Amino acid sequence: MAKPDGKALAQKAIAARDATIPQEYLLPKSAYPLPKNRRGLLESSGILKPKELEIVDLTLIPLAKAIAEKKYTAVEVATAYCKAAAIAQQATNCVLELFQDEALAEAQKLDDHLAKTGKVVGPLHGVPISIKDHIRQKGHAAPCGFLYAVDQIAEEDSHLFKVLRAAGAVPYVRTINCQAVMHLECRSAWGATLNPWNADLVPGGSTGGEGALLAMRGSPLGVGSDIGGSVRSPAAACGIYSFKPSIGRVPNTGAETLSAAAGYEGIISTLGPMGRSVEDLELIMRIIADAKPWEYDPSLHVKPWREIKRTGKLRIGVLRDDGVVRPVGAINRALEYAVDKLKAAGHEIVEYKPYESETSWDIITKLYFPDGGKLVYDSLKKADEPADPMTDWIVGQGRELDRDEIIDLVARRDKYRMAVAAHWQKAGIDCLLSPVGPTPAPLPFTAKYWNYTSYWNLANYPAGVFPTGLFVDENDKKDTNKPRNEKEEEIYASYDPAKAQGAPLCLQVVGYIGHEEETLDAMKTIVNAVTK
Amino acid sequence: MAKPDGKALAQKAIAARDATIPQEYLLPKSAYPLPKNRRGLLESSGILKPKELEIVDLTLIPLAKAIAEKKYTAVEVATAYCKAAAIAQQATNCVLELFQDEALAEAQKLDDHLAKTGKVVGPLHGVPISIKDHIRQKGHAAPCGFLYAVDQIAEEDSHLFKVLRAAGAVPYVRTINCQAVMHLECRSAWGATLNPWNADLVPGGSTGGEGALLAMRGSPLGVGSDIGGSVRSPAAACGIYSFKPSIGRVPNTGAETLSAAAGYEGIISTLGPMGRSVEDLELIMRIIADAKPWEYDPSLHVKPWREIKRTGKLRIGVLRDDGVVRPVGAINRALEYAVDKLKAAGHEIVEYKPYESETSWDIITKLYFPDGGKLVYDSLKKADEPADPMTDWIVGQGRELDRDEIIDLVARRDKYRMAVAAHWQKAGIDCLLSPVGPTPAPLPFTAKYWNYTSYWNLANYPAGVFPTGLFVDENDKKDTNKPRNEKEEEIYASYDPAKAQGAPLCLQVVGYIGHEEETLDAMKTIVNAVTK
Repeated sequence: MAKPDGKALAQKAIAARDATIPQEYLLPKSAYPLPKNRRGLLESSGILKPKELEIVDLTLIPLAKAIAEKKYTAVEVATAYCKAAAIAQQATNCVLELFQDEALAEAQKLDDHLAKTGKVVGPLHGVPISIKDHIRQKGHAAPCGFLYAVDQIAEEDSHLFKVLRAAGAVPYVRTINCQAVMHLECRSAWGATLNPWNADLVPGGSTGGEGALLAMRGSPLGVGSDIGGSVRSPAAACGIYSFKPSIGRVPNTGAETLSAAAGYEGIISTLGPMGRSVEDLELIMRIIADAKPWEYDPSLHVKPWREIKRTGKLRIGVLRDDGVVRPVGAINRALEYAVDKLKAAGHEIVEYKPYESETSWDIITKLYFPDGGKLVYDSLKKADEPADPMTDWIVGQGRELDRDEIIDLVARRDKYRMAVAAHWQKAGIDCLLSPVGPTPAPLPFTAKYWNYTSYWNLANYPAGVFPTGLFVDENDKKDTNKPRNEKEEEIYASYDPAKAQGAPLCLQVVGYIGHEEETLDAMKTIVNAVTK
Repeated sequence: MAKPDGKALAQKAIAARDATIPQEYLLPKSAYPLPKNRRGLLESSGILKPKELEIVDLTLIPLAKAIAEKKYTAVEVATAYCKAAAIAQQATNCVLELFQDEALAEAQKLDDHLAKTGKVVGPLHGVPISIKDHIRQKGHAAPCGFLYAVDQIAEEDSHLFKVLRAAGAVPYVRTINCQAVMHLECRSAWGATLNPWNADLVPGGSTGGEGALLAMRGSPLGVGSDIGGSVRSPAAACGIYSFKPSIGRVPNTGAETLSAAAGYEGIISTLGPMGRSVEDLELIMRIIADAKPWEYDPSLHVKPWREIKRTGKLRIGVLRDDGVVRPVGAINRALEYAVDKLKAAGHEIVEYKPYESETSWDIITKLYFPDGGKLVYDSLKKADEPADPMTDWIVGQGRELDRDEIIDLVARRDKYRMAVAAHWQKAGIDCLLSPVGPTPAPLPFTAKYWNYTSYWNLANYPAGVFPTGLFVDENDKKDTNKPRNEKEEEIYASYDPAKAQGAPLCLQVVGYIGHEEETLDAMKTIVNAVTK
């Protein structure tokens, strides 16, 4: 067998992807050079008609309603979103594959069904849905961010995909995740995905393609996965909404990554929705529960969606500093802004100190690659693919472990989870308001502290992200605090508000384990108070 | 340090246990030699007064009602059960420790509370509760069937214990489990626990002490644990009721065994109630859910107890043969009897073939001891304790595994669970009626096939056991079927109905994963149809 040539293989993969973008959706030459903030390209390109711009401006719930009421056909909607996704791709390099013909055929079937029966097939009838690379779709490649797997075609839809399709969703685009699906940035053999608000910045990761696409209004609903922050970091970097449930509520089957061994339970990824309103996220979680996925996947909890009838005000913990890396000024500003709004709305705010942050980071980074990264590096080698510096960095946070070391580490994890739960119960809060990370959308190669998100993966708490409506602006100055430790020094050194202009400022809402319903309900209340 | 002397240590442990039995509860010499069937000793010994015999004849729910209505005081009830447990100990060697003084003091407090407030502290107000060795109780030893740990005093109650105490239960006795908590028989340094119906037979295991105690009416409610059949086998052997839930509904904390490493997730034990009616088991499961144990233990599912309002008849699968060891004649007789009764009651009966039984046994026996039994043998060595032949046997079913072998095996387990779930869903049944094992209560050293129970541990389905009201009798003849394989040959050779006379015939009801409510509800319906 000939030695693989990584550069040639990458060029071929990129060319194949580019060929999926219809010629008529290419930006005119006059659009170049593209501005740093690329969100206006939908309007300025002239590719979308006024009705199509109207469509992509809607969030999921009103869009689904408009389709059900025959204001728009599913074909019109799919067309609008294919155009928007094509532009988003040219703006940010977020797309792995666009398949307009397949989407239009599916949309036509739905239109016919509605015309014939007068009924929608489900609550997502005709709503386009974008999907992260590693979440498998029958007949499409799921390379999981690895070049060698570019031709591995899925024989079956992932379980979650089946649920969303059955509800009427129309797949039309697959999006890029980073190499090995394990950075909070988004680079791979397919190149770097850029942040739509400021192309110098990363869009977060690993679900960076979804983040950029949604922020470009190139999708009304995306699906990602999160084992350390992978649906929350892109939402925060791109100014959209996302939700990471606890383990056991959303089916993982068919969404395995090629760098995490099946059968390894030390730390488990959870799939979650990404969207443009918190109500949309809640609807998706409800649709998943209503499909009774536990009847097909015995790893899931048997938990019908519970209706929350909260009365009275929330008691909200606020986490200002995890004790390792205190967030930079712009993040603090957003947090204070939200706290003030919540207080004004009558909610109770209490200070919350997380339980032993360093311990969480120590345990989770050791749990990620118990083989010392062997699977990852073997996978890269197969296509002569160079390791991204962030791959080397995250693998290097742990080391190879033997059987008894893993068992000891999992015992430590369980003990830690018990301690975090006791700490939370003692605080007696309804939810927690927290930064998503220590900085807004970072510059490339600098997202090296995830503990504001991965903490809740290890602890297994549901957590969502929302945009505050604030952005990094010219009043944000570089912090002059003396770093308390090397990690803080590294993060502070990597961040410069002058370079992060325009980056959205987002926050995280965390709820208690297994309380997805209460968490989303609290998140709705908070979003209302902070942004409306 | 002097070399430990296992024999001397065992004698000391037994003497210490014997000293916990009040002198006045010792059987008169005239009671000896004890009959094979020892269940009548409560009456014949003359130790219990008529009112006390009336008390121990009640099952939990009417007993709790009688205490709440002040028909009996908690002190009267505790006294009656201490007497009954003392007799059960002398009849079957089922007790690890009886602590009457502590129980009476606790009962007195409850009586005072009821007198003063007119209210019970909870639904178990004054109900005595017996607990298996390894389920920890503050101030008491939990040697987990190991001699070396005889003096290891628990510093805290196990989580489940806390829940039951808070509901008003009164602990008074701790019961024997087998060495290493891993046989379906019940021998350890404390000697052999005997079957109350026929002292030549084993009482099942590992929770054999509870089984014997409950069958002697020495307890109204016991708690055990099950990782292969350990609450179901003793119920079947002793003719009582028990229930093994799915993982995640009953807290395990404080019930660790000394032979299973904390942090090892390949196969997980579940605690479950043992009692004298199916309604009692349901009440206990409801009390546990009502205590919201997930607020303290993040490994548990957030699942309030669901009310089941079933209408219409059940569709019941019947499993007659797992394809490896077909049950012997007496078990088949009980199964046919139950099927006839269920048909007569209008329920639908469909044949059910289990999905690849051999695969289940292969995976679970490999998952039990990934260290090749090192922890067990090291623990035995500490007190110069000889390994029981059943310890050697079960450890020998697996072998030491390295990290990647475990990960592969867990992946196989997950794939297998998916296949079992699909197989079950295809059958479209409400529940399954199955043997609990291939034979009634076995002779010592012969319980070497657990797959009728361990199958549902690997698959993680809830399963309960109930007595049909039938027993092995003189009409049961040795089977003359030609064995299909070595395992069947071994089991058939070990069983002789002539030696098993009087052994109760019990059956198992299995429900779908996470459906504890539906399973117990179906079990109630089945018990009603079969036994009433």
